[in-house]
Amino acid sequence: MESSPSLRGTVYLAMSVDGYIADADGGVDWLNELEHDEADGDMGYGALIASVDAIVMGRKSYETVRGFDVPWPYEIPVIVLSSSTVDIPAELQESVRHLNHSPAELATLLPTQGIDRVYVDGGVTVRGFLQQGLIDRMTLTTIPILLGDGVSLFEGLGQRVALTLESSTVFSHGLVQSTYLVGAES
Amino acid sequence: MESSPSLRGTVYLAMSVDGYIADADGGVDWLNELEHDEADGDMGYGALIASVDAIVMGRKSYETVRGFDVPWPYEIPVIVLSSSTVDIPAELQESVRHLNHSPAELATLLPTQGIDRVYVDGGVTVRGFLQQGLIDRMTLTTIPILLGDGVSLFEGLGQRVALTLESSTVFSHGLVQSTYLVGAES
Repeated sequence: MESSPSLRGTVYLAMSVDGYIADADGGVDWLNELEHDEADGDMGYGALIASVDAIVMGRKSYETVRGFDVPWPYEIPVIVLSSSTVDIPAELQESVRHLNHSPAELATLLPTQGIDRVYVDGGVTVRGFLQQGLIDRMTLTTIPILLGDGVSLFEGLGQRVALTLESSTVFSHGLVQSTYLVGAES
Repeated sequence: MESSPSLRGTVYLAMSVDGYIADADGGVDWLNELEHDEADGDMGYGALIASVDAIVMGRKSYETVRGFDVPWPYEIPVIVLSSSTVDIPAELQESVRHLNHSPAELATLLPTQGIDRVYVDGGVTVRGFLQQGLIDRMTLTTIPILLGDGVSLFEGLGQRVALTLESSTVFSHGLVQSTYLVGAES
């Protein structure tokens, strides 16, 4: 199920030890309440953003980010995938666009628009990209908590994917950040 | 939901990056095919076994271990929890016993038999012990693979559990072993 190889996605997500990226109500208080320690730097986030042409996320991730009590945090184009309508306010019309495309369709479309590398966010979107062989790197930061229930990052993936560990780093508050290359040796 | 504090459980399990301890057929080929590297030592297993009085596991874990093409691997007592019958062959009658007890009932029973610390194995059993506040340490070794489906370690836990990272170590083949203390600071 490999699609065009010219679109490559990268994942950078925080999850609980039980693999949830949000609690059952979609909340991430367990993540946001962690105080940032200066010694941790930006935990690779700046390098990630600098390495991509755009961010692709699902409607739920978009609405979660918009719900944060901070200005819109992205300076690169954001593509929101949804089969329903997406509320994009006037001030974001320049930087956010809504598409109703599958990952395979994006793999054809985006490279024609100069978008070859994307940061893929949100469980449904990440799984869809993985299923199409469109992810080549995943940085997963494990937060030391069991949520017990929530929005799973990987549940429903439905196929094996070989990974190779590139690095693993411990940050403050017991966060373990591991970066995996996707589809390398089994 | 804290039970008697005198029974304390520890978890030592390998799981895929997507949180499965066995594939959808109960298989662990993805785990067993990893060649052991001498430099990794025993990855803490000997110290774990030396620290406990017995092993508590569910029927499925028991049958998985019995299905391995190796002699019975445990030299300490094993308690198999099951509400149905468990086939214990004659040569294991001395070291394996079957109980149909809940974790809370075990917390009352086992300390009267000199069993205070147990190694808890298998998803259902681990979740039951966690729900009763009977686990104080978890060593989770993450194998670099997405299985896509399988037997989940934590799915169905249904409650938040605070963890504190004690240590995290990278072993050969990209295994990341993280040890968490349970129920410490949130």
